[in-house]
Amino acid sequence: MAPEGAATADGTGASERATRRRRRERVDSGGMARPQYRRLSNPFQPVRILSDDEVEALHQAALSLLQETGMRVLHGRARDILQRAGASVDPNTRMVRLEQALVEDALSRAPSEFELTARSPERSVRMGGRSVAFTTVGGPPNIFDTRTGKRPGTLGDYQDFMRLAQRFDVVHLINQCVEPLDVPLAERHLEVTHAQLTLTDKVSFVFSRGGPQVADCFAMFRIAQGLDADAFVRTPCCYTVINTTSPLQLDVPMAQGIIDFAEAGQPLVITPFTLAGAMAPVTILGALVEQHAEALFGLALAEIVRPGTPVVYGAFTSNVDMRSGAPAFGTPEAVKANFVSGQLARRLKLPWRSSNVNASNVPDAQAAYESQMSLWGSLMAGCNMLIHGAGWLEGGLSASKEKFVLDVEMLQMFAELFQPLAFSTEELGLDAIREVGPGGHFFAAQHTMARYRSAFYRPLVSDWSNFGQWTENGAKDATTRAYEIAQRTLAEFEPPPLDPARREELDAFREKRIREGGALPES
Amino acid sequence: MAPEGAATADGTGASERATRRRRRERVDSGGMARPQYRRLSNPFQPVRILSDDEVEALHQAALSLLQETGMRVLHGRARDILQRAGASVDPNTRMVRLEQALVEDALSRAPSEFELTARSPERSVRMGGRSVAFTTVGGPPNIFDTRTGKRPGTLGDYQDFMRLAQRFDVVHLINQCVEPLDVPLAERHLEVTHAQLTLTDKVSFVFSRGGPQVADCFAMFRIAQGLDADAFVRTPCCYTVINTTSPLQLDVPMAQGIIDFAEAGQPLVITPFTLAGAMAPVTILGALVEQHAEALFGLALAEIVRPGTPVVYGAFTSNVDMRSGAPAFGTPEAVKANFVSGQLARRLKLPWRSSNVNASNVPDAQAAYESQMSLWGSLMAGCNMLIHGAGWLEGGLSASKEKFVLDVEMLQMFAELFQPLAFSTEELGLDAIREVGPGGHFFAAQHTMARYRSAFYRPLVSDWSNFGQWTENGAKDATTRAYEIAQRTLAEFEPPPLDPARREELDAFREKRIREGGALPES
Repeated sequence: MAPEGAATADGTGASERATRRRRRERVDSGGMARPQYRRLSNPFQPVRILSDDEVEALHQAALSLLQETGMRVLHGRARDILQRAGASVDPNTRMVRLEQALVEDALSRAPSEFELTARSPERSVRMGGRSVAFTTVGGPPNIFDTRTGKRPGTLGDYQDFMRLAQRFDVVHLINQCVEPLDVPLAERHLEVTHAQLTLTDKVSFVFSRGGPQVADCFAMFRIAQGLDADAFVRTPCCYTVINTTSPLQLDVPMAQGIIDFAEAGQPLVITPFTLAGAMAPVTILGALVEQHAEALFGLALAEIVRPGTPVVYGAFTSNVDMRSGAPAFGTPEAVKANFVSGQLARRLKLPWRSSNVNASNVPDAQAAYESQMSLWGSLMAGCNMLIHGAGWLEGGLSASKEKFVLDVEMLQMFAELFQPLAFSTEELGLDAIREVGPGGHFFAAQHTMARYRSAFYRPLVSDWSNFGQWTENGAKDATTRAYEIAQRTLAEFEPPPLDPARREELDAFREKRIREGGALPES
Repeated sequence: MAPEGAATADGTGASERATRRRRRERVDSGGMARPQYRRLSNPFQPVRILSDDEVEALHQAALSLLQETGMRVLHGRARDILQRAGASVDPNTRMVRLEQALVEDALSRAPSEFELTARSPERSVRMGGRSVAFTTVGGPPNIFDTRTGKRPGTLGDYQDFMRLAQRFDVVHLINQCVEPLDVPLAERHLEVTHAQLTLTDKVSFVFSRGGPQVADCFAMFRIAQGLDADAFVRTPCCYTVINTTSPLQLDVPMAQGIIDFAEAGQPLVITPFTLAGAMAPVTILGALVEQHAEALFGLALAEIVRPGTPVVYGAFTSNVDMRSGAPAFGTPEAVKANFVSGQLARRLKLPWRSSNVNASNVPDAQAAYESQMSLWGSLMAGCNMLIHGAGWLEGGLSASKEKFVLDVEMLQMFAELFQPLAFSTEELGLDAIREVGPGGHFFAAQHTMARYRSAFYRPLVSDWSNFGQWTENGAKDATTRAYEIAQRTLAEFEPPPLDPARREELDAFREKRIREGGALPES
């Protein structure tokens, strides 16, 4: 390649090309090092956008909102629990007000870090501190596929996402990838949990859609991990996400989910759904006051039900398009909201959750740059749990296997960025520079030969071949390549080992519960 | 939209849709606020990846390299100038060694901030401190167009890039967009400078391709800005980029460029071309030692020629694909290199330059995510001058108008991110949250109405419409939309005003110099 300031003809000479060809052969036959991305730690100081005083003022504004206005709680037992703990409950409006001291006392019981235990110990995940974990997409009802278009999700799709999630180390946690709309509502939780536990050995997700479904899922996790009820409560091994109905409302299945998970000692991610300009004030700070108040409320309820419940502070503040009311993701405002959310979570000394989200209808350049804005905004702000890490499209209305693979590439780049930059005389390479000297090149230097196999991140999707080679290879854009990688990954899939007795018990549990009619969602 | 934890059918009701429609009409007829992005300031503390001791050790390693090994300087007069200043010159090998004190003394003369004066004062740009300025792409020999494919660049393309650059405030500085290969070499500098000075009123770029060409360009800048020779030396109004021939070599036109620009008081961006594993050590720290040593050498030469010369510390360290030797951009390693480069530039108290680069062959998802990696890596590390800000593709071998527009979108998002998050009781919005209450929405709240016109960034390319609307609109991906925006922008272009007498003088100068045979590049 020509230096940018010099004449612009391609200056690559024949001998240099020959050298490269030789290198390529040697490297390919020698094989490259394959890194693993299982436990990640973010070495960077989190971004600060507010002063400590401003963070405190925002925190106090949220507390005053809970104390003076409170939240409407639609779930009777949750209101009772809160009242017994000292909350003020209005039985007519169902508004529940929490004194500052009650919130602070409850939150002081929450662990600042905890472990999520996977079926295979090497897949366990640390939550909090400097740790970072990525999940699959969760919840879209549709699949978008660049070849066949958009259609409702199926159990087959769900299982495919399990296979993709299992394949890539950088995907640490399972989420509800796509809704299997071909499975009857009363059986759906059984099928997805069965798929999670048989196709992956990673920590998985349970939807809070009412007590009976949650009880079934917990039973299946206990079977898969060989835990009795007591051990289960001491072993966080699945998690749920609680969305408040912003503004200021907690509905029945969500409140029930908080109670169920807290009683079972399983982690709760409390995430208000605060889109500035729609369900939250049009100012980012206003949306964050609402986010913070609602999160505090849910977190407090969890700790009141069972002190020490593992919880995660969830941040999902973004904005809408003020011309249409449509949700927008990966915006500059969402980045600022993430920066503040990180500061708020650290004020609470809790792990915090953010998202890899975008509003594009297809896995194109917009999907990529909005995702990158989400990723950088979250990860430079010290996010511990990144939900929707791989596969989210169309503002969450579609899941996409192509986008899953593109996201894995982006997540792997962050995993590499988090690797420390080892500082040593050897790494400074003065001897190599002197050895090569003016006008030389480093391809064959000893310093290079000793390191080339693991020197750099080796991409999954990115194509760095020259235009001619790329054209010969079919002139495929990144989305097309991602599609092919997804297909290949699915074709090569092998499930992780699972003790046959447990597998049998899982199968039997599913069959029995389906025969019994399963369990419908509650609302 | 449905909250992520609830049932997944699209929950948008008819009345909510009607409300949104009314809002859209109102907002469209009312018009949205249009922000301006002319002078940007980065409010964030730059990322630190090395300790101060490690930065100092890297700096000392580079100084020792200059003292013990030195650089090969192919330009006789540059060697003489350095020798007179105290450097040790070997006439046989043309190696020039610089004592640490000589380098430090020279660099102490460099301004840590300076102003670049544009033809229209509101287009002037601050360099250094917290200021951030973005340039167009510079230097590709080809155009890539998603409709017609890849072909050699022309003067018409060059002029189109000037028109695109003029249109968007967030593009602060012109660079050499694309090489107009249809113009004879001896006339090319006259045509591109004429296009810069007549189609834009922004600070522009001059290629250092030998003294005679640079002299012509300087003459044209003096005409356009109405400056005599003395005033020109006191008024930085154009800039060049000097690439060392890494490793450790400074060639003839680049050395001549340093001398010409320093003598004319015009800014120099000194950028070593250090791809780890090829022209630099395979370790990022080794590549950075080389970058730093070569940059220090060029910077010192500029300050020796004329103390006080405005200079910029240029960082371009990335890595190659170790399987093929192909250059890679937007990699995790390049991000780390940017983080360190920012620390090194601050150690020198100089403005620093980075790039918005990618290695994709087409303006696709890869181009977008690699660009984002480059942007975040540079801007979170406090970069002052981002070269190749808009339009770079294929590792710099192609310029793309679609990519230009996609990049403008990304740059505008950063410009928005840099706007301060004003903290006030009003912004915290407690009254609005109380007014709306549980289960309500903020669309019609007074707090919203007072702010909606300027509340959020309004995107250029991103399409946030729902899947149905997007399909009705032609199901265009972001690259297709960017193409159309580029075409529309070109069709609507109007050149900035230019004093007719100066315009006439510029035309005459170009004609006269062409009649005289122009000036060939020197090497």
